[in-house]
Amino acid sequence: MKTYLDCFPCFMEQALRAGRIATNDEKKIKRLLDEVGGMLSSIPLESTPPESGKVIYQKVSEITGIPDPYKEIKRESTEKALTLYPSLKDEVKKGKDPLLTAIRIAIAGNVIDFGANSHFNIEKEVYEILRKDFAICDYEKFKVQLNESSEILYIGDNAGECVFDRVLIEEMKKPVTYVVRDVPIINDATYEDAIQAGIDKVATIISSGTDAPGTILGTCNAEFKKIYDNANFIISKGQGNYEALSNERRPIFFLLKVKCHVIANDIGVEKGDIILKNSEFKDYRI
Amino acid sequence: MKTYLDCFPCFMEQALRAGRIATNDEKKIKRLLDEVGGMLSSIPLESTPPESGKVIYQKVSEITGIPDPYKEIKRESTEKALTLYPSLKDEVKKGKDPLLTAIRIAIAGNVIDFGANSHFNIEKEVYEILRKDFAICDYEKFKVQLNESSEILYIGDNAGECVFDRVLIEEMKKPVTYVVRDVPIINDATYEDAIQAGIDKVATIISSGTDAPGTILGTCNAEFKKIYDNANFIISKGQGNYEALSNERRPIFFLLKVKCHVIANDIGVEKGDIILKNSEFKDYRI
Repeated sequence: MKTYLDCFPCFMEQALRAGRIATNDEKKIKRLLDEVGGMLSSIPLESTPPESGKVIYQKVSEITGIPDPYKEIKRESTEKALTLYPSLKDEVKKGKDPLLTAIRIAIAGNVIDFGANSHFNIEKEVYEILRKDFAICDYEKFKVQLNESSEILYIGDNAGECVFDRVLIEEMKKPVTYVVRDVPIINDATYEDAIQAGIDKVATIISSGTDAPGTILGTCNAEFKKIYDNANFIISKGQGNYEALSNERRPIFFLLKVKCHVIANDIGVEKGDIILKNSEFKDYRI
Repeated sequence: MKTYLDCFPCFMEQALRAGRIATNDEKKIKRLLDEVGGMLSSIPLESTPPESGKVIYQKVSEITGIPDPYKEIKRESTEKALTLYPSLKDEVKKGKDPLLTAIRIAIAGNVIDFGANSHFNIEKEVYEILRKDFAICDYEKFKVQLNESSEILYIGDNAGECVFDRVLIEEMKKPVTYVVRDVPIINDATYEDAIQAGIDKVATIISSGTDAPGTILGTCNAEFKKIYDNANFIISKGQGNYEALSNERRPIFFLLKVKCHVIANDIGVEKGDIILKNSEFKDYRI
């Protein structure tokens, strides 16, 4: 996805929000906003938003001196999600269509996104998303491709959300490679966060190699790219990965809750909608 | 009022909104955002927001080549408000306390603010504000000071809103000097807009001399400053004038609808609240 004009005020908002999480020093945050403001002219509309997110959040760390402002928030998100895990499993068990319920749960976890927002109620979100209509629901294709695939490449998004992903992974009953960011960026899941969520019990965890809040292929390592290029069933979670991969010609299913108007317009849905969207690329090598 | 950190993303949003009203040329708007981003470092937290608003909206005109992007919007706002004028007068007539009803109506008109927003429904706003509790209501002081004053200095805010101000002016039954901006800035009322609203029939219209979206005294002309310094009953409408005058030691009543979190926090109320707030400065020369 390209960068839209509306992304520019949002970049400033994100810098402010992250700056405040990192420090109470108003002067440092002002300097951060000054510098991010000055960086905007070097962001072309043709770039994807996570490319800019990467440099903006690096600037947050540089100016505040805090390399991982969301470290504690991430730990707490996962702890909280783990307390919900038994009830999430119950929901799947009692659902009419357990796989679809597990997909809904994985999407509900996508609300734990401190890049897009900082106010959410995860229990309420689960309750609502279990009952909400999909704006796009390529579930039939999902089932067919899942059935035809021997393994799954699952690109994770945020810490805490991993626990919700685990529920879906367990329900798909196929070998899964679960992809995390290489280093901390916003509250995106790293190896450590995936381990805390127990993903290692249900999947093989690898790093994409990226230091961006989205799977920008140019920043990914060779190991990930090889697996990605050969995968015939890819799940991409969240907005950051959608922004980075939406123009890719690969067999991807995008699972997300749409949290901003820009992405809503890009997809052609409404803010708040939930999406299970096939990239509409069929891998004929299957 | 000082500039808060939250104002900086908002400056970018305002530039984007105004840019879009002025032009459809995405490249020009991108350049506008780049330049406004680069200007942020020259905005000190100690300045008032309308000081920055002035240079930002000047930049909108410079880059888009449109000196008054809101010209047509302002004309339409006033036309629309004039159609409501008879029903506003009826509301005053049938109100238990006609002066307080007229104050409420003047505040309802303050929603016509394209700097703070661009989506509002003026009829709905009038209906709600006629029934809404004030978050701050220094009405008793207002009545006492009005009674003690021989004339009123009324600092207007936006085009269209002038019609609502006219209703209050007519109800106060004292000579009024009505103050407008010197040149077009956002949808703020200029001499032309006040005339279109019929303010000339009920008050003497003067320009403050400012080219900012708020009465920044350093940018005002000598005529206005003399009247301002000698006034013992001043009404200040809207956010921009509050931002510029909130620290002044003058007998001012601020009438506004609070349209952003920053001003809400500064005043100690909630976004959406309505305010009739005395500056708590008593002019003992009365």
